[in-house]
Amino acid sequence: MTDLQIAHSVRPRPILEVAKELGLQQEELTLFGSHKAKISLKVLERLQARKLGRYILVTAINPTPLGEGKTTTSIGLAMGLTRLGHRAVVTLRQPSLGPVFGVKGGGTGGGHAQVIPMEDINLHLTGDAHAVAASHNLLSAFLDNHLFQGNQLAIDPSRVSWPRALGVSDRALREITLSGETGNRSARFVITEASEVMAVLALARDRLDLRERLGRILVALTTSGRPIVAEELGCAGSMAVLLKDALEPNLVQTLEGTPAFVHTGPFGNIAHGNCSVVSDAMALRCADFVVTEAGFGSDLGAEKFFNIKCRASGLKPDLAVVVATLRALKLHGGGGPVKAGAPLPVSLTGPNQDALAKGFANLEQHIANAQAHGVPAVVAVNAFRDDPPAELAWVRDQALKAGAAGAAVSTHWAEGGKGAEELASAVVRASETPSQFTPLYELSWPLSKKIETIATRIYGAKGVAFEPEAERQLETAERLGFGRLPVCMAKTPLSLSHDAAVKGRPAGFTVPIKELRVLAGAGFVTAVCSGIQLMPGLPKKPAGERIDLDPESGEIVGLA
Amino acid sequence: MTDLQIAHSVRPRPILEVAKELGLQQEELTLFGSHKAKISLKVLERLQARKLGRYILVTAINPTPLGEGKTTTSIGLAMGLTRLGHRAVVTLRQPSLGPVFGVKGGGTGGGHAQVIPMEDINLHLTGDAHAVAASHNLLSAFLDNHLFQGNQLAIDPSRVSWPRALGVSDRALREITLSGETGNRSARFVITEASEVMAVLALARDRLDLRERLGRILVALTTSGRPIVAEELGCAGSMAVLLKDALEPNLVQTLEGTPAFVHTGPFGNIAHGNCSVVSDAMALRCADFVVTEAGFGSDLGAEKFFNIKCRASGLKPDLAVVVATLRALKLHGGGGPVKAGAPLPVSLTGPNQDALAKGFANLEQHIANAQAHGVPAVVAVNAFRDDPPAELAWVRDQALKAGAAGAAVSTHWAEGGKGAEELASAVVRASETPSQFTPLYELSWPLSKKIETIATRIYGAKGVAFEPEAERQLETAERLGFGRLPVCMAKTPLSLSHDAAVKGRPAGFTVPIKELRVLAGAGFVTAVCSGIQLMPGLPKKPAGERIDLDPESGEIVGLA
Repeated sequence: MTDLQIAHSVRPRPILEVAKELGLQQEELTLFGSHKAKISLKVLERLQARKLGRYILVTAINPTPLGEGKTTTSIGLAMGLTRLGHRAVVTLRQPSLGPVFGVKGGGTGGGHAQVIPMEDINLHLTGDAHAVAASHNLLSAFLDNHLFQGNQLAIDPSRVSWPRALGVSDRALREITLSGETGNRSARFVITEASEVMAVLALARDRLDLRERLGRILVALTTSGRPIVAEELGCAGSMAVLLKDALEPNLVQTLEGTPAFVHTGPFGNIAHGNCSVVSDAMALRCADFVVTEAGFGSDLGAEKFFNIKCRASGLKPDLAVVVATLRALKLHGGGGPVKAGAPLPVSLTGPNQDALAKGFANLEQHIANAQAHGVPAVVAVNAFRDDPPAELAWVRDQALKAGAAGAAVSTHWAEGGKGAEELASAVVRASETPSQFTPLYELSWPLSKKIETIATRIYGAKGVAFEPEAERQLETAERLGFGRLPVCMAKTPLSLSHDAAVKGRPAGFTVPIKELRVLAGAGFVTAVCSGIQLMPGLPKKPAGERIDLDPESGEIVGLA
Repeated sequence: MTDLQIAHSVRPRPILEVAKELGLQQEELTLFGSHKAKISLKVLERLQARKLGRYILVTAINPTPLGEGKTTTSIGLAMGLTRLGHRAVVTLRQPSLGPVFGVKGGGTGGGHAQVIPMEDINLHLTGDAHAVAASHNLLSAFLDNHLFQGNQLAIDPSRVSWPRALGVSDRALREITLSGETGNRSARFVITEASEVMAVLALARDRLDLRERLGRILVALTTSGRPIVAEELGCAGSMAVLLKDALEPNLVQTLEGTPAFVHTGPFGNIAHGNCSVVSDAMALRCADFVVTEAGFGSDLGAEKFFNIKCRASGLKPDLAVVVATLRALKLHGGGGPVKAGAPLPVSLTGPNQDALAKGFANLEQHIANAQAHGVPAVVAVNAFRDDPPAELAWVRDQALKAGAAGAAVSTHWAEGGKGAEELASAVVRASETPSQFTPLYELSWPLSKKIETIATRIYGAKGVAFEPEAERQLETAERLGFGRLPVCMAKTPLSLSHDAAVKGRPAGFTVPIKELRVLAGAGFVTAVCSGIQLMPGLPKKPAGERIDLDPESGEIVGLA
């Protein structure tokens, strides 16, 4: 059965029923049909005094380019916890619309671990991403209108850093020239998920915080080098108006009826790659266990979760779940190459204890990365159909020896929540004692020291090297008062290092920092280790060519 | 009281209740909260055999730049009909989001003749316009990706006519250069409402028709002059998927609880400026009277309603209501200038029987324009607060003498449905006998003859003159097989002629045709009389500067 067939084989529960079980009241919901709803922010006030549930972060080792099932593990774990009698919620990022028609297909899990309605979640959901793009582009229009109407603020057109945003993968918009009546200006589009407005929406604690963050967005420098923010352009109020409804989390469900919050989808490179603060804060007041997924491996998504998102939210994680697969561990152990478009070699998919044992070192670093923040780690060995049982068991046992607070093989993809019960039990046990969560670095440190600390302690590097451009930007950022912001690292997710080809647990390397970008509204400074692509392109045969609408039934066909 | 205060002073009815009164079943609705819903296309099948209600088109004389209250009259009339005991629905276009933050403010009526929830309708409503932009831009991305991936179809990059679309007023995107890896290419953005996809959505009768129209969209010519359509790029299926929900009409209500369908918002210049075929078809099966508004005066919106929309829908209008105001008639009678930003002169707002009598000729042409299609016209004199009662009565009486099938002074702005009762009675009486509706021209005629017929019979011109570029495009359009499409005229709405400064009922003029554009998916050829602006700019002080979100209450402030 395909994912879509599995999704359609389940009769979803009315979302009102799912909400009621969470203790939500009907008047706190805005229904979008029978299977989606937005949840009013008033819930946060009503449940202010409620004891928070346990906060479980799902992260992973460095993945293969195919991904190692972090989303399915998050969904499976929440379903497994429910089967054990706990009240659980899973909180996820909303998939990006553009890639659905490009390379990737949907982003709602797979097999028997999915969130539904999958078509809606993969397409418009409740329109939040569209609202983000509108809000973003209003600021772009206000900025160029300011230049056009006389440029009273003396903005330097060559120092405008604010791009435009679009929800479609469109390579041709990466670099454009605006041919305006005030002269030509180079400009660019990023995909909506790479917009700072998406990061702002994801990190805002409430409407006031949202409004203030929008006002602080840095868009340009003046000819004399003074920073210009959205507030000065008179645009932040309207931007907030466009995001009024988008700030409310979206409630959907898993295939087994477990509540799922799918809300905001900030990129994991330029931004922090985590779902919204508001959904986690709300879920923790409604549930005993909140399972949330961060982007990529612990070197990226989890580190940013701990040091950016938890700082913004004030929430304290109890446990990290590190997802590992045999194929990815074998890749880290030199088990063979992964080529885009080609099937995986049998040295990765078949038995290969040798590569597995070598590659295990990668997992050790990720366990240590959680522990470096005072958070214990449980290892989830995500089993694929043909994985040798002995190898799965070996990884589980080895993880415990390596200091994991728990470990389990999980078969949620094939079996749903039932397949994640062992993992759920391990998570319950390991989260019984509160964590000693502490951020990795102090905000008062200089940016360079924060970056070095992440590189050495989380990546295992010897140090960092700032390229001349980055040196200048570092100096400017500190001088303009952005030095106290946390750091958001942009590097390849495929390696602990900055080089995608380097597997395992490398040491002795120096991380180059090419560029710094100040995202003052989101509230972090992004340090770029290698080129980041903020607007995907379409492949030669885009997935969209196979997608169609059946005119009779109105059903979508070809959406994977 | 401001419009927003009036809107907020009313407690809206639950939309389910509004729907039930229309005979809609709960399972045919997708709720978007308690006061908005989408209506399933299944209603069209279930009520297939139902006798259709009377179909009333609201149009107007040539307006002042301020507008003459066509939207409020449409809403008021539907409320007036309801008060007389009829089951009435008003169908309207969705306002364009961009101008809300620019010049114009909202587009949901005013005074005591509004549709609500006004903020939602003016902002995202149910996301249809965002879906149109996504669908449009997916085609743009597929097209440039085709060029990038080797250009198998031999598309001539300099003959790409398909733009990109954005829902924000952004002057800087009117002309851009794409700096792609396959070389530079000039390109442009239009506002979403000027997208052909919006026109397609508005004219599609059902999903199959939508799917086929999308496939027929002409995007470029090859180096050998062959037309390239969306279907060949493999994109039309995905475009339809993105519009799956957007094809369903949106149900909201008037201040008095009358059902209102607000659906699609095609521009009135490049496109036909009418709300969706699907909403009218559905409303006519549910109600005894359907009041629908067309863009601008009868020379534009009504002519296109008769010859484009009614052809596409197969529906037959029973009556036209021509809205006139004293100030606009006086303007047509030489009563004084209207300057943007300045208050109207007293010669327009105060008594001026002389100018009124002279300007009345403009109204006569609009009455005749409806009659030219076999449709009787009722004149609605939309009264403003300080209008002299004798002048209002004079216009009403004079309209009857001029051949109107009815005439009434209407005070719906000040009084709601009560103020439109006289108009409603006139409409009921005048629509008792079925109209003799016939389109103005045959589709088999050459495009040039269709254009001439519109110009001479509807505008009162002596003839048309095709400029050399238009001559060439005419020849190409005929040769490529687009000659049998209806024509969509793009000219100023402020005059019966092509020259905005010419008031009254001019004669003896020749209409220049500068350019033809084939909108093969929408199914018409647009003939452009003077430059048309498809992407608005923002003014020096955009309305968005005054709009904000109250963080405490979550209410929007400053939205007019």
